[in-house]
Amino acid sequence: MDPLMQAKPTTDSYAETTNLVLPNDANTMGNLFGGQLLKWLDMSCAISAGRHSQCVSVTAAVNNVSFDVPIKLGDLVTIKAHVSRTFNTSMEVWADVWIEDQATGKRTKCNSAIYTFVAMGNGGKPTPVPPVVPVTEEEQLRYAGALRRRQLRLILAGKMKPGEATELKALFM
Amino acid sequence: MDPLMQAKPTTDSYAETTNLVLPNDANTMGNLFGGQLLKWLDMSCAISAGRHSQCVSVTAAVNNVSFDVPIKLGDLVTIKAHVSRTFNTSMEVWADVWIEDQATGKRTKCNSAIYTFVAMGNGGKPTPVPPVVPVTEEEQLRYAGALRRRQLRLILAGKMKPGEATELKALFM
Amino acid sequence: MDPLMQAKPTTDSYAETTNLVLPNDANTMGNLFGGQLLKWLDMSCAISAGRHSQCVSVTAAVNNVSFDVPIKLGDLVTIKAHVSRTFNTSMEVWADVWIEDQATGKRTKCNSAIYTFVAMGNGGKPTPVPPVVPVTEEEQLRYAGALRRRQLRLILAGKMKPGEATELKALFM
Amino acid sequence: MDPLMQAKPTTDSYAETTNLVLPNDANTMGNLFGGQLLKWLDMSCAISAGRHSQCVSVTAAVNNVSFDVPIKLGDLVTIKAHVSRTFNTSMEVWADVWIEDQATGKRTKCNSAIYTFVAMGNGGKPTPVPPVVPVTEEEQLRYAGALRRRQLRLILAGKMKPGEATELKALFM
Amino acid sequence: MDPLMQAKPTTDSYAETTNLVLPNDANTMGNLFGGQLLKWLDMSCAISAGRHSQCVSVTAAVNNVSFDVPIKLGDLVTIKAHVSRTFNTSMEVWADVWIEDQATGKRTKCNSAIYTFVAMGNGGKPTPVPPVVPVTEEEQLRYAGALRRRQLRLILAGKMKPGEATELKALFM
Amino acid sequence: MDPLMQAKPTTDSYAETTNLVLPNDANTMGNLFGGQLLKWLDMSCAISAGRHSQCVSVTAAVNNVSFDVPIKLGDLVTIKAHVSRTFNTSMEVWADVWIEDQATGKRTKCNSAIYTFVAMGNGGKPTPVPPVVPVTEEEQLRYAGALRRRQLRLILAGKMKPGEATELKALFM
Repeated sequence: MDPLMQAKPTTDSYAETTNLVLPNDANTMGNLFGGQLLKWLDMSCAISAGRHSQCVSVTAAVNNVSFDVPIKLGDLVTIKAHVSRTFNTSMEVWADVWIEDQATGKRTKCNSAIYTFVAMGNGGKPTPVPPVVPVTEEEQLRYAGALRRRQLRLILAGKMKPGEATELKALFM
Repeated sequence: MDPLMQAKPTTDSYAETTNLVLPNDANTMGNLFGGQLLKWLDMSCAISAGRHSQCVSVTAAVNNVSFDVPIKLGDLVTIKAHVSRTFNTSMEVWADVWIEDQATGKRTKCNSAIYTFVAMGNGGKPTPVPPVVPVTEEEQLRYAGALRRRQLRLILAGKMKPGEATELKALFM
Repeated sequence: MDPLMQAKPTTDSYAETTNLVLPNDANTMGNLFGGQLLKWLDMSCAISAGRHSQCVSVTAAVNNVSFDVPIKLGDLVTIKAHVSRTFNTSMEVWADVWIEDQATGKRTKCNSAIYTFVAMGNGGKPTPVPPVVPVTEEEQLRYAGALRRRQLRLILAGKMKPGEATELKALFM
Repeated sequence: MDPLMQAKPTTDSYAETTNLVLPNDANTMGNLFGGQLLKWLDMSCAISAGRHSQCVSVTAAVNNVSFDVPIKLGDLVTIKAHVSRTFNTSMEVWADVWIEDQATGKRTKCNSAIYTFVAMGNGGKPTPVPPVVPVTEEEQLRYAGALRRRQLRLILAGKMKPGEATELKALFM
Repeated sequence: MDPLMQAKPTTDSYAETTNLVLPNDANTMGNLFGGQLLKWLDMSCAISAGRHSQCVSVTAAVNNVSFDVPIKLGDLVTIKAHVSRTFNTSMEVWADVWIEDQATGKRTKCNSAIYTFVAMGNGGKPTPVPPVVPVTEEEQLRYAGALRRRQLRLILAGKMKPGEATELKALFM
Repeated sequence: MDPLMQAKPTTDSYAETTNLVLPNDANTMGNLFGGQLLKWLDMSCAISAGRHSQCVSVTAAVNNVSFDVPIKLGDLVTIKAHVSRTFNTSMEVWADVWIEDQATGKRTKCNSAIYTFVAMGNGGKPTPVPPVVPVTEEEQLRYAGALRRRQLRLILAGKMKPGEATELKALFM
């Protein structure tokens, strides 16, 4: 990493977008397709990673997304993304998904997703990004867990041996 | 699971689809957006899970997807999905992604994705699915690793404690 | 208006969305079609009007939109909307459009749009909405000018005679 | 304006298009989104302005659109546009919207929209357009009112002082 | 056919639509996909058949379409459709395709397509349609050839034996 | 044709794709639009023609498509295409359409389509393609009938006189 790169607060990478679930986005049971939500999440994370790195940023991995609550046709879906931690040229990005009940104005958090993005420099090669400084307590927790998740991702991709994943190993002891 | 449910070979759930990368699917560097590929993968896995379970099947989780090779504007992307293992009402589905060089006819495998789907019965409730019998050697390996990945997913979702994940724990010992 | 309806600050109706300009959104000169921006603006204003009124809200009029700065293919377009004033069942909604230079992180405001929405109650009939309390100085100016713009809109639609538009008339004296 | 430019009848700029309202174009009450109609209107006006000027023409402003009658899912929407008056490099374009009852064949005019377009010459700079000669009585009325609407638009955009808008001022005396 | 059904001139079924070729509609050589043109043609013919029959009309066959001239990205494509002849519940519909050179205003006819539609009555069953009276010389020629094309279509679909196709047979004698 | 070009079995050009019928693909009766199916068929045939010729292949004609069975919203539509015969630079491509009943797993063939594609070489000019060797009995029948259909297509396009169509003529004797 460029030693002159200055750490940035997570607030610099905040990205918010609201989408409306249209008929083509929903299955025959009237629920949002998982694939459409994955596409929206990817776009929000890409914007967030771009704001942090000030580079075009491309998806390197989807670490984990779970779909616990069905989202209905006609719902407003708000996605808020931020960079949770960086590793040289890559960024872990969290996206939280909220559904909004228009009649009461109540917003309910329905799931979270974790993506990994890589910043692309001139010539289309990965380029280092500045570190991130977590602000809220939740962001600090996410920052702390990122190393463990990275080891997990590298093991799953066959790029690290389980024995080398010291952070992760500690979990099971 | 219904004791009368008969196991099915993985071939019953094979689903193949070819997509062409259009300008709206690609970023300014001319590469396919990760989010668009995630949407295509989800659709292929949903078809595969539907063929296995003979039920509408909905996305429960994306376990792991990594994007190692950029896919270019104008490329033909072939996705082949199959159910790799089942757990009562849920199915692990693998999707392999191939790019095809039209001039030589050569197809190159560029990445794999793992999704979890749940079969929905009448009334929109999860319903048990038949077991799967892996056919090829690769399918047998995927079958064997599925339990470990399931424990991982449950830990990440906060639904299982690391200490209870006996299969996974063994990896780190 | 329901005398029990409590006025709400403009912050309650804030709606923010970021869109990426894709090839199908741009003309042969590589600039965003006016019509696509109008569609995005309408969606943001509808979300804002819905948040204020807690009702499905439908477009009644586009009062004025001007396109001063071309927006380019690949640009990130952020739209921020809020309700600026209400008139029984209708709401004037302002949307400000920002373009973001990814390399420097600089955001530039490129234009503003004014729409009118109507809140729909049960049975699909217009229903009264609570008044709005402007917060920032800019919001106060927009609140003050809304009556004049409403008279203008009614004259243009042939629903008011110029002689009755007392607020507007004063402008030309 | 090029002194050699010959005036053209409004018929030269006629543009007609019929669209079908699909599920993704309609809100949860089954009515066409205002934003989708605005997008279709913009496209029809762009075609009309292009036919008049024989140049790529870009949206400069939406002067006024009001949505009086809801348009339903499955309706056929016919838009007829023509250039109503020109001002050096800009053109006022009117678009009339018709709905068609398939069972009776009856077409009902449901609203009108007024857009301003600018003709772009080589190098992407505004370029003069020929004058227009209104043909029908309705077109003559639209031609006559265009100067007043132009003053209004410039005042709203802060580019003209109300005191200078002589045509408009006369309305209120 | 209902003996009270009155024949209608072809002008009653005229349908015109102009589409712009966008990046997602074109292949890597920058030419409009045949499939996208087929979709636009089908929509124009459906509108024309609906205007003639005053019923929802569904595609029964594509008799013949040939693509002689490539249509380029950014071109304006105008489709004009009309019902050329009817056979009890079915209608032969012709669609002519025109490309427009914006700089000169010149329109060039680039191909024609022939579709067959069936009118659907209440209960979703085919219902008789009124006969058509061809107006122009070209429409009269199309009317005259329709019987031959219908025999051809029925033979190709295996619904008529070549020996019974008296009109068609005469061609080869 | 290049004398060194080696004939290829039809299996080399097999292309399979499964599409889900979404709300925007269906008319108000809930049936797939003919035009949308034509677009999907064209894409499958283009992939098949590309696999056979190892060139970008463009639609030259739609010879015949008939729509016998309505396809419903929510159905899975599987299209299987293969090159049935070649003529110097052009290829006849057949596409068979299957609908799948998810509850029983049963697939029903609902119609077939015949398209003609042309292989484009460097410089965007038609280029010769290798011959095809039909494999199954059905493919052999399609191969045998292709010459007759080609004569028919050329007559319809006004490029051959009926008297010269010896193959076709024999049908009517």
